[in-house]
Amino acid sequence: MNKTAVYRKEHFNAAHRLNNPQLSADENAELYGKCNNPNYHGHNYEVVVKVTGDIDLRTGYVTDTKALSQIIKENITDRLDHKNLNLDVPELIDTNPTTENIAVFIYNSLRNKINPQFDLKIFLYETERNFVEYPA
Amino acid sequence: MNKTAVYRKEHFNAAHRLNNPQLSADENAELYGKCNNPNYHGHNYEVVVKVTGDIDLRTGYVTDTKALSQIIKENITDRLDHKNLNLDVPELIDTNPTTENIAVFIYNSLRNKINPQFDLKIFLYETERNFVEYPA
Amino acid sequence: MNKTAVYRKEHFNAAHRLNNPQLSADENAELYGKCNNPNYHGHNYEVVVKVTGDIDLRTGYVTDTKALSQIIKENITDRLDHKNLNLDVPELIDTNPTTENIAVFIYNSLRNKINPQFDLKIFLYETERNFVEYPA
Amino acid sequence: MNKTAVYRKEHFNAAHRLNNPQLSADENAELYGKCNNPNYHGHNYEVVVKVTGDIDLRTGYVTDTKALSQIIKENITDRLDHKNLNLDVPELIDTNPTTENIAVFIYNSLRNKINPQFDLKIFLYETERNFVEYPA
Amino acid sequence: MNKTAVYRKEHFNAAHRLNNPQLSADENAELYGKCNNPNYHGHNYEVVVKVTGDIDLRTGYVTDTKALSQIIKENITDRLDHKNLNLDVPELIDTNPTTENIAVFIYNSLRNKINPQFDLKIFLYETERNFVEYPA
Amino acid sequence: MNKTAVYRKEHFNAAHRLNNPQLSADENAELYGKCNNPNYHGHNYEVVVKVTGDIDLRTGYVTDTKALSQIIKENITDRLDHKNLNLDVPELIDTNPTTENIAVFIYNSLRNKINPQFDLKIFLYETERNFVEYPA
Repeated sequence: MNKTAVYRKEHFNAAHRLNNPQLSADENAELYGKCNNPNYHGHNYEVVVKVTGDIDLRTGYVTDTKALSQIIKENITDRLDHKNLNLDVPELIDTNPTTENIAVFIYNSLRNKINPQFDLKIFLYETERNFVEYPA
Repeated sequence: MNKTAVYRKEHFNAAHRLNNPQLSADENAELYGKCNNPNYHGHNYEVVVKVTGDIDLRTGYVTDTKALSQIIKENITDRLDHKNLNLDVPELIDTNPTTENIAVFIYNSLRNKINPQFDLKIFLYETERNFVEYPA
Repeated sequence: MNKTAVYRKEHFNAAHRLNNPQLSADENAELYGKCNNPNYHGHNYEVVVKVTGDIDLRTGYVTDTKALSQIIKENITDRLDHKNLNLDVPELIDTNPTTENIAVFIYNSLRNKINPQFDLKIFLYETERNFVEYPA
Repeated sequence: MNKTAVYRKEHFNAAHRLNNPQLSADENAELYGKCNNPNYHGHNYEVVVKVTGDIDLRTGYVTDTKALSQIIKENITDRLDHKNLNLDVPELIDTNPTTENIAVFIYNSLRNKINPQFDLKIFLYETERNFVEYPA
Repeated sequence: MNKTAVYRKEHFNAAHRLNNPQLSADENAELYGKCNNPNYHGHNYEVVVKVTGDIDLRTGYVTDTKALSQIIKENITDRLDHKNLNLDVPELIDTNPTTENIAVFIYNSLRNKINPQFDLKIFLYETERNFVEYPA
Repeated sequence: MNKTAVYRKEHFNAAHRLNNPQLSADENAELYGKCNNPNYHGHNYEVVVKVTGDIDLRTGYVTDTKALSQIIKENITDRLDHKNLNLDVPELIDTNPTTENIAVFIYNSLRNKINPQFDLKIFLYETERNFVEYPA
C-alpha cells in the first residue's frame, strides 16, 4: 500500500547571529559577513513538518494535524518564537544557529514526539529565498 | 537518462464535513472537533499534479501542461468545484473527505488518464498550512 | 500630523451558498450559477482589518495588534470559522452571504469594539482573485 | 489629468526589541509581552515605497523604479539590513522600533531624496499578518 | 451610505521592450538599460481591477465578479496574453509599453465597458516587486 | 549520517517562443498554440537550486548560500535575465525553450560549478501554476 504524507506549516520570529567560537573574529567576519553582526539580526522563520505513513482507516488521517500543530507548538515554536537563538534556548547555547543546524535541532526535538512508525522530515525557511530540508 | 517532472496547479472551492458514520456522534465530535460541524465548512483547495517521465525530443515536453490542465479540469475540478464533498460527488458518498482521502481519490481518478509510463503524484492543499502528498 | 494605519490579517474557513429568498429558484440559479448550489461550497477567507489613527507616543503603536487580533478573534473568527454562513450565525440568517455582505457584517461587528477616534476599514478575500473593501 | 502611482518592494532582515525607556521594566513587560525580550527577536521586513505623480511623456515612467530601488538601497536597506534596530542605527537609537515608528523613519529618510512634486507613502510589513501604512 | 469596492485579479504573459522612438538608440539604451533589449524580454503580468459602488440589494453584489472576469478576458487578457506588446496589439503600436502606459491602456479599454456609476481603478504588477496603480 | 539539502531561489525575466524547426509551421502552431507566437511572449521565471550534502562542522552550512547565489548569478541569471531565450543566449540557439529544456540547461550549466560530492537539482517555475523539476 502506498504511503501518504501530511505537512503542517508553523512560524516563529527570532534573532540570531552566525558565529563559530572556535574561529577567530576575523575568520568569522570573513565567513559569515553581515550575518556575523555581534548585535544580531533576525528572521520570520517558517517551519514545515512532514509526517509520512499509512492512512488510518478509522480517522481518514495519517495523523491529526491539530495534534501535530500542538506538538510543534509545545516543542518548537513556544521555545523559539520571539527568542534569541544564540542566547535564550538552553539546548542551542553551543549550536551555531545556521538554518541547517536549526533544522536538525527541530528534527531531533520532534523525532521522539512523533510515532516511530512515521517518517519525519523538516523544511525550514529562513527567508522566502533561503531554505533547507532535513533529512534530505 | 535522468527523468524530469512537470507540475500543474489547479484549484477548486468546496464544502465538506469530517465524519465517520461507523462512529457515534460523540466520538466524531471528539475526533474531528469543529471540522465535524453537521452544517459543513469549506476551503479553497489547491491541487498540484506531478507527472514524471522523459522529455519528448519532438515537443520538448514531458507532457503538454495545457492537455494536463484539461485532464484535471474534466476529471477533478469540474466534479469538485463549488460542490459539497460529502453530498454532491457520487464516487465520494462513502468517503470521509479528509485531505488524505481526497488526494487518494484524485490520484485514482487521474491514474488511468495519464500515460502509464509516467509516474504520478498528487499534492493537495486544504489551507496554506495543511497539505498532503500521495503517494509519498 | 499625519495619520498612520495598522493592518492585521486573520483567516477563517466557512461554507456558504448565495441565494436571495425573494427570488425564484430559477432566478437564483441564473444569477449565482454554481455559487447557488443548495448543498453549499466553501472558502478559506482572509480578513484584513485596517485601523487608522495617530501613533501613541507612549507605546509607539496606533493600536496594539495583539489586542486587535484578540478583538477580531472574539468578534469574527470565533463566530465564523468552520461555520456555515447561511445556517450557523444567528446575525447572518437573513443575509445573503456575498463577500460584500460579509465584509459589511464584519465592519459592523467591529466598529463599536474599536476606539471611535480610529477609522476602520475591512478587506475580505474570498479567494486570491476575488476580494472586497468596505468602506471604500 | 489623472495621477499614477508606482510601487517598489524591497526587503531587509533585522533584530529588534520593543521597549520604552521612560517606562519601568514591569510596565514594558506588560505592554510589549514577548516583544520586550531583552535579548531581541527579529523579522524579515518587506518595505513597499509608493510614489505618485504624472507619467513623464519622454520616459513613460512616473519615476524610474531602478533608480528608486537604488535610492531605497542607499537610504534604507543598506542601513537596516542585518542590523539590530535598537543598537546599530545611529538615527534610531532613541526610537522605540515599532513597525509604526520604523515606517515613519523610512518616510522621513526618503522624503528629501524623492522629487517633491511626487507624493510618497510607505507600507512596512513586519510579518505577513502585521503591517502599517504611513502616511495613511 | 458607504461605498464598497470589489477587486478581480487576472493574469497574462507577454513580451515587451521599452523604447521611445523619438530618442536615439544611445539615449534609449541609457534610459532603459537591459529593458531596451531589441529582442524583447517578458513578464507574467497580474492585473487587478477595482470597481467601487453601492451594493445592489437584489444581488448582494456591487457587480458580479464572474461577469467582470469575462469583461476583463474579452477586453484585456485575450488581447494581451501570449502577445508581444510592441508588435501584436494594434492599439499599442505607438505606445512605449511601460507598466504605467499599459495600466492606462487597460483603464481606457475597460472604462466604457463598466457601468459609469462605478469608479474604476487598475493595479498592474509587472513583477512581485514592481507595480503601478491608475488612477492613483 | 543524514544528508541535508539547501535551496536558493533566484529569478529572471525573459521572452521566448516554443518552436521545433524540424516541424512545419502548421505542426508547430497546432502543437504549441499561442506559445508559438512568432513575436514571442515572456515570463517571470523563478529558479530554485537544491544542493544536498553533509553539514560542514566548521561553517554549519552544507554550502554557503551567498556563494551559491553568486554562482547562480554568474552562470544563469546574468545570462538569461531580460533576454530572448530563442535569440540572445548562444548555448540555447538550437534549443526549443520549453521549461523542461531550460531546466536541463540550468542543471548542466551549474553541475560543474558545484562541488561534485553534492547532489544538484533544479526547480524552474514558468508561472505559479506550471513548473518543472530536473532531475526528478
